[in-house]
Amino acid sequence: MANSFGQLFRITTWGESHGGGVGVVVDGCPPRLKLSAGDIQPDLDRRRPGQSRIVTPRNEADRVEILSGTFEGKTLGTPISLWVRNEDARPEAYTEMKTKFRPSHADYTYFAKFGIRAWPGGGRTSARETIGRVAAGAIAKKILRERFGVEVLAYVKQVQRIIADVDPEKVRFKDIESNIVRCPNQAAAEKMIRLIEKMRRAGDSVGGIVEGVARGVPAGWGEPVFDRLEADLAKAMLSLPATKAFEIGSGFGGILLTGRQHNDPFRMRGGKVHTTTNRSGGIQGGISNGEPIFFRVAFKPTATVMHEQDTVTEDFKNTTLKGRGRHDPCVLPRAVPMVEAMTALVLVDHALRHKAQCG
Amino acid sequence: MANSFGQLFRITTWGESHGGGVGVVVDGCPPRLKLSAGDIQPDLDRRRPGQSRIVTPRNEADRVEILSGTFEGKTLGTPISLWVRNEDARPEAYTEMKTKFRPSHADYTYFAKFGIRAWPGGGRTSARETIGRVAAGAIAKKILRERFGVEVLAYVKQVQRIIADVDPEKVRFKDIESNIVRCPNQAAAEKMIRLIEKMRRAGDSVGGIVEGVARGVPAGWGEPVFDRLEADLAKAMLSLPATKAFEIGSGFGGILLTGRQHNDPFRMRGGKVHTTTNRSGGIQGGISNGEPIFFRVAFKPTATVMHEQDTVTEDFKNTTLKGRGRHDPCVLPRAVPMVEAMTALVLVDHALRHKAQCG
Amino acid sequence: MANSFGQLFRITTWGESHGGGVGVVVDGCPPRLKLSAGDIQPDLDRRRPGQSRIVTPRNEADRVEILSGTFEGKTLGTPISLWVRNEDARPEAYTEMKTKFRPSHADYTYFAKFGIRAWPGGGRTSARETIGRVAAGAIAKKILRERFGVEVLAYVKQVQRIIADVDPEKVRFKDIESNIVRCPNQAAAEKMIRLIEKMRRAGDSVGGIVEGVARGVPAGWGEPVFDRLEADLAKAMLSLPATKAFEIGSGFGGILLTGRQHNDPFRMRGGKVHTTTNRSGGIQGGISNGEPIFFRVAFKPTATVMHEQDTVTEDFKNTTLKGRGRHDPCVLPRAVPMVEAMTALVLVDHALRHKAQCG
Amino acid sequence: MANSFGQLFRITTWGESHGGGVGVVVDGCPPRLKLSAGDIQPDLDRRRPGQSRIVTPRNEADRVEILSGTFEGKTLGTPISLWVRNEDARPEAYTEMKTKFRPSHADYTYFAKFGIRAWPGGGRTSARETIGRVAAGAIAKKILRERFGVEVLAYVKQVQRIIADVDPEKVRFKDIESNIVRCPNQAAAEKMIRLIEKMRRAGDSVGGIVEGVARGVPAGWGEPVFDRLEADLAKAMLSLPATKAFEIGSGFGGILLTGRQHNDPFRMRGGKVHTTTNRSGGIQGGISNGEPIFFRVAFKPTATVMHEQDTVTEDFKNTTLKGRGRHDPCVLPRAVPMVEAMTALVLVDHALRHKAQCG
Repeated sequence: MANSFGQLFRITTWGESHGGGVGVVVDGCPPRLKLSAGDIQPDLDRRRPGQSRIVTPRNEADRVEILSGTFEGKTLGTPISLWVRNEDARPEAYTEMKTKFRPSHADYTYFAKFGIRAWPGGGRTSARETIGRVAAGAIAKKILRERFGVEVLAYVKQVQRIIADVDPEKVRFKDIESNIVRCPNQAAAEKMIRLIEKMRRAGDSVGGIVEGVARGVPAGWGEPVFDRLEADLAKAMLSLPATKAFEIGSGFGGILLTGRQHNDPFRMRGGKVHTTTNRSGGIQGGISNGEPIFFRVAFKPTATVMHEQDTVTEDFKNTTLKGRGRHDPCVLPRAVPMVEAMTALVLVDHALRHKAQCG
Repeated sequence: MANSFGQLFRITTWGESHGGGVGVVVDGCPPRLKLSAGDIQPDLDRRRPGQSRIVTPRNEADRVEILSGTFEGKTLGTPISLWVRNEDARPEAYTEMKTKFRPSHADYTYFAKFGIRAWPGGGRTSARETIGRVAAGAIAKKILRERFGVEVLAYVKQVQRIIADVDPEKVRFKDIESNIVRCPNQAAAEKMIRLIEKMRRAGDSVGGIVEGVARGVPAGWGEPVFDRLEADLAKAMLSLPATKAFEIGSGFGGILLTGRQHNDPFRMRGGKVHTTTNRSGGIQGGISNGEPIFFRVAFKPTATVMHEQDTVTEDFKNTTLKGRGRHDPCVLPRAVPMVEAMTALVLVDHALRHKAQCG
Repeated sequence: MANSFGQLFRITTWGESHGGGVGVVVDGCPPRLKLSAGDIQPDLDRRRPGQSRIVTPRNEADRVEILSGTFEGKTLGTPISLWVRNEDARPEAYTEMKTKFRPSHADYTYFAKFGIRAWPGGGRTSARETIGRVAAGAIAKKILRERFGVEVLAYVKQVQRIIADVDPEKVRFKDIESNIVRCPNQAAAEKMIRLIEKMRRAGDSVGGIVEGVARGVPAGWGEPVFDRLEADLAKAMLSLPATKAFEIGSGFGGILLTGRQHNDPFRMRGGKVHTTTNRSGGIQGGISNGEPIFFRVAFKPTATVMHEQDTVTEDFKNTTLKGRGRHDPCVLPRAVPMVEAMTALVLVDHALRHKAQCG
Repeated sequence: MANSFGQLFRITTWGESHGGGVGVVVDGCPPRLKLSAGDIQPDLDRRRPGQSRIVTPRNEADRVEILSGTFEGKTLGTPISLWVRNEDARPEAYTEMKTKFRPSHADYTYFAKFGIRAWPGGGRTSARETIGRVAAGAIAKKILRERFGVEVLAYVKQVQRIIADVDPEKVRFKDIESNIVRCPNQAAAEKMIRLIEKMRRAGDSVGGIVEGVARGVPAGWGEPVFDRLEADLAKAMLSLPATKAFEIGSGFGGILLTGRQHNDPFRMRGGKVHTTTNRSGGIQGGISNGEPIFFRVAFKPTATVMHEQDTVTEDFKNTTLKGRGRHDPCVLPRAVPMVEAMTALVLVDHALRHKAQCG
């Protein structure tokens, strides 16, 4: 259904911005995995507002509670229910949203679909929904790391026109986390931070690209023909708020090459099949080939800006709306753990599916 | 499962390149829709090899038979089984493929996954698998047209560096079909055809971009939060062979704008809510907003080239492989009906889901 | 997945007996339905331990909280998260269960499957899991009643050898609720209560039959061929703890008749098609025919008894185990709301599926 | 969806009685299993009409063709498409069915649901739909036997009042197949055959009980909480045509015992945990406990009888209908392979699910 993701490692998120909280139920987790809130909280801290001067200042601790699915510090194989209380509920900060649709937000489309909407904080359309994904993704990453030797990383590759040179085969987590924009190229990171601060001051916003990478995935994960690994990754990424594009391996750029130039030749290396280039991005015919998987996701500039913009009211009259209070000049630093989470959720699901049919 | 697509309008494709045929079972089709092979065959003709001098010359009529699900020319609401016999089976044309993995094909990854592979014609990895999708898509397009007033189109937007200027809001089917490359901009089409012919003669291949558009989709289709319309479209497109990228609306280009510039203002027009720009591509927060939906899909240059390339054997020794016989210098003209089909499958599924919950 | 039920009205339950609570996420609920805890609590009160002298005395208020999915007293169309805290956690009352498998409970099979188990209170195998079902079922019943005019009822039909004569076409809710055993036949109810009290004093238990009925279901709900209405009802009932059998309409008894005797003749009545008998139980070929749907479910005698019984330890040694403290002499009075809930969940799911394809 | 069954070993059946044929697509079959039509045909022969003097005389060879999913005699891991042509199409034999609903058939309910129906031979409601199940079940049985050491059997336990004494732990396939009614108790079989022949001559029909058994299932298959093994078996059985009831282990009879009497004590035997009785029927809490799994399914007397019966017409007028030509006096001998097939489909699905999460 709409609010679930995954076939065998299946998550269901719930919650609105200003309700009793947000959460996720994780079904299908293997038993006997060591798991505590300490495995999950660090990723929520990387996702939460207020973590640095370049992200939205909303003040929430986003403390996760494990309500079920573990016993004496280990997973039971039963559903893991994770919950984060909403704290910073300030419906009064959004009263104009009660009657006006914010441009390029989902206020209008939710209203068109459901005939009702929870306007405080955007309700279900709030990025708070991703808390459940990031929490579940932390579990998925742990399974991938401990049971399959797979490492999942993501980082900011581009902010507007500032492009960072990063080698997806070698990038390290600590380099990504060494600055507040989560770009492992320090020179580019500094420029990005300056640009984002400028946007914040201007009440405007910028978008960019997050690159995701998975290393250590063995050849053979993924499914013909609809549940191709890249298809599931594309869906996972485009299901994140504010995303507009996805490309894997050579992506859109690959179309400038001819077939002769674009093909990845196979060579034996260390007794294993390898490709000497990786334009395929680690996936061929929907199935991993053992090379690093890497892809890029475009996030549009965040829609809330501190400027008056044309819009319409809930009773269908033209009006204007100006964002007030806090705004997020760039979602990218917080999107990094979201991309990691969705990548890990796709991969662990395919790992289990592979075991089932071919294990 | 891996070979099924859709929740309520669900298709399951089957078949290998050189087995008894390829087909599809369509489950969930509304009853009492007029349906005959004549509704389906035209799209298969647009998909099939040998239709023009710029596509692969494989000689198959690809005649569809309806085996179930209709009675006296109307759908029953029961599964529609569609079958196309394989005719041009020439396993001898592929004997080198028996022992060698073709670079940037799925030979190696299927073998890594399953420990067995049907090497003649690539087996399940053959583009013949898309016959089932295109056939099912023809039904989906008919439902959208007749029951929901929605028109789905696709066309070639770019071949390598040749970019066609096309207005997705106005493009007509007959303009798309007026040339063999399926690009509605005639000047660009001529250049594209010349480039593809050059590639064919050179034994090489080129890729490019297919743009898809859906007009007439009402506001309110799509689901929060994982089954967003754009997420399902992204998955649908990336599940097509040879695809590497997907972008909707402003896509990757949108990140060059600031939020102020990028947002789509709302205005009332003709008593309905409209946006004055359409950078959102017709979808906001995963749900259609009533504007035309448009997106682009990158297809890499086809992998089979008539040149010697490095590869490895099934028993893991370095070797080389040179494509022989026929090759497809550009998949794009045949990809157009595939993109249409997958778009229609996503939309009709969401149309039915919308009826179920909100109808 | 294992912990979800339903296709379009989909519930996911979570929680162990002695963890942070138990709950359910309801996905796919139509929007704009009036909903508050007051719609759900009464069914939880009918389900909870300690409600009368003939059920298990566990002391839990089982207060439901709605954490998401509603706004200003109406459903949003987004996931409804319901939570009931665990209060009466007394792990010390179960210490023998830590090392011994209770006979005819699921202790051993969970351990065999997962290699780990939450022994306090039986963990996930506890009947507390049904709280989520009953809570979700209350919403399903409300939708059926308000949007489709369908009434769902269940009652105790038999306790061991005491069989109540009840007309499923006429039985009323208030008659069912008029006594603590939930049998609408008062004479039979008194005998049942006496038998259960005797069992309680003897530290033993009895089982019996709950009959479920749905009135007002229009002709046409249900799906060929696997998701037949009776098949989904059978699965729903056999997924309840302690169930061993299901029969619809004439059931096992129908095999004593010949075809001539067993068939339900059709006759027009009030301008509508009716059957003059209802051996089909309101369903033919998996699809409702407009007659009342009725079926029976067998619940075995509860497994916890206050007598020493042979069993084995977690390290595989023969031993004995005697139930201590509180026990449930008969699950039937509390099973009534469970049967209603599962019936309603099946029906509302099929109502939505019918709308999607044939609406 | 409605015409698919299973999560990981997923079948989709298609086909009407008088269309182009009936078939099934099997998705999720493990690769490298030896498979030919010879593995499947014997079960279709046990299912087909005309196999003996006590079943319906319809004259169809029911020859299966494998259209995809195998290569050089082994499964590929891709979808297996199986097809049986319809041969004995005699729509003229059913002309009265065109305008009249057969009592206790699904003619009326399909019409009420879909507003259209394929009346020749009953269309999709025909028992021919089970061909796909039996074919897929033959593959499932082979996987269970060769990869998991599990044996699945079924046999006729009761015809009307004639009950056969059979030990489910010891019954052998060859004893079941030693007579045309498929009852391994020869004395009972003879009485059953005489009764069925009498019914055939009288133009009437009888029902009865098929018992299914699975031996060798290890402890640990099955899922909490909705996809319990017995719940999935119940659904599988009630999805077969003409079924009215299901019971596992002690079933309805178990409610006559008290908890003390009913519980299955555990004892170690041969180093393994066993129960000394098996009232649980091999499943506890939804998960197999290592004991033989056994259950009973009630099939009503077949609805087609050679006598005039009250019914209504498609334009809603009272009328009568008398069956003509051939009729099936007892479906039980042909139901035996159907019960085996559905049992095997449930078990192989759970075997793969167990591997995925806990393997």
